[in-house]
Amino acid sequence: MTPLDDPLFDAPTPLMVLVRPQMGENIGASARAMLNFGCARMRLVAPRDGWPNPKATALASGASGVLDRAGVFDSVAGAVADCDYVFATTARGRGLTKPVLTPAHAMEQARALNEAGKRVAVLFGPERAGLENDDVARANAIITVPVNPAFYSLNLAQCVLLVAYEFARQGHAAPPEVMAMAGTDFATAQEREKLGDHFEARLGEAGFFHPPEKAARMRLNLRNMWTRLALTRADVQTLHGMLRQLARRG
Amino acid sequence: MTPLDDPLFDAPTPLMVLVRPQMGENIGASARAMLNFGCARMRLVAPRDGWPNPKATALASGASGVLDRAGVFDSVAGAVADCDYVFATTARGRGLTKPVLTPAHAMEQARALNEAGKRVAVLFGPERAGLENDDVARANAIITVPVNPAFYSLNLAQCVLLVAYEFARQGHAAPPEVMAMAGTDFATAQEREKLGDHFEARLGEAGFFHPPEKAARMRLNLRNMWTRLALTRADVQTLHGMLRQLARRG
Repeated sequence: MTPLDDPLFDAPTPLMVLVRPQMGENIGASARAMLNFGCARMRLVAPRDGWPNPKATALASGASGVLDRAGVFDSVAGAVADCDYVFATTARGRGLTKPVLTPAHAMEQARALNEAGKRVAVLFGPERAGLENDDVARANAIITVPVNPAFYSLNLAQCVLLVAYEFARQGHAAPPEVMAMAGTDFATAQEREKLGDHFEARLGEAGFFHPPEKAARMRLNLRNMWTRLALTRADVQTLHGMLRQLARRG
Repeated sequence: MTPLDDPLFDAPTPLMVLVRPQMGENIGASARAMLNFGCARMRLVAPRDGWPNPKATALASGASGVLDRAGVFDSVAGAVADCDYVFATTARGRGLTKPVLTPAHAMEQARALNEAGKRVAVLFGPERAGLENDDVARANAIITVPVNPAFYSLNLAQCVLLVAYEFARQGHAAPPEVMAMAGTDFATAQEREKLGDHFEARLGEAGFFHPPEKAARMRLNLRNMWTRLALTRADVQTLHGMLRQLARRG
């Protein structure tokens, strides 16, 4: 499959717009971060070292298709001209009256907008200084990652990673916690019952239920344990096998 | 403020446990990733290049306090001995029956457990190969980041970043529903480890691990079973008692 017919590039995902990025390596790392979460549409505004950039390509490695398809623009205004809704990522307050959203909230909105056929862009500023007020002013809303106020060291690709991650996460509204357990072959009640019988018999022979006035409670607790533990069929076999082996030895 | 009286280090956050990390740079980058989201408690298991590692310190820069306070251990078992609940991050299915959670769900649980006074750890594998089955078997549950199945390139520090981000994010959300789990007196990892040792020793004497070529896998499955079952402290006592009684008889 060539990049040109990869369906990823047509999927309605946010356009990740890197504004005046400085280091080619960070552009490549951003492409990788995006593609981890199924976001393949990148735009670049006035990359410092020109375009294409061999350092970006080298670092993107398996994600170089994202770079091959990236649009390059002179200005933020040009890069977002065909977009319906624009977010700007920034750490600092700007004295600009704009909604400030978490990545989670913003990407929830982005997904809803995408589903309604709207095109969404997210602006990321240059490594050193971040977006300028002029850039932020072109956005409908601000995304601020809620970091530790005493320590902020997110780099460009990490910021892209968190936004792409959140976009993907919003798409898993249906339970993504497909527990490996869901496919698990749990023991039936009858199997647990037989396991309980087996243990009770062998432990009884071994003098485990002692003293006699506590024996009934001990049996009850043991029965309760086997049902509470969510044993698989394989566990039950293992426990039977253990017990047989330990008893045989006697 | 010196690292020693930084309140961050006392905050109940998950212990981030880097298992056999290879590159010092990645240890430093992980410390930064953690501190961005207020997680300051790191443990290291057998770092390849020894400890302390100047490359880790150089890259951690403002987050070097995390490294100064990191505990160093020989084994995963030692690193999680005092933990109540252990997550293992892994991308691949393991053929081990364990709950598999998203970072979001796992950190929601971690926060509830922390609030109930429980100590939570998250294991991260070495850069190249990830965690081994023996490591995963010591965890209660698996965290898998839901990445693009066609492109996975998360590095160690990015994986740590996403988990720490999710932990912080859960703190900003509406309070997670109180888990029934939180009030239960679960066995610690160390108590489970000792239970596993006890069974392994007695079953070994009884000739349970047979045939020899299957013994390693049988031991692994057994270790995995004890961690998966969410045993309470009382369960562990019962199981020790059973085993002692059965063995005494022999």
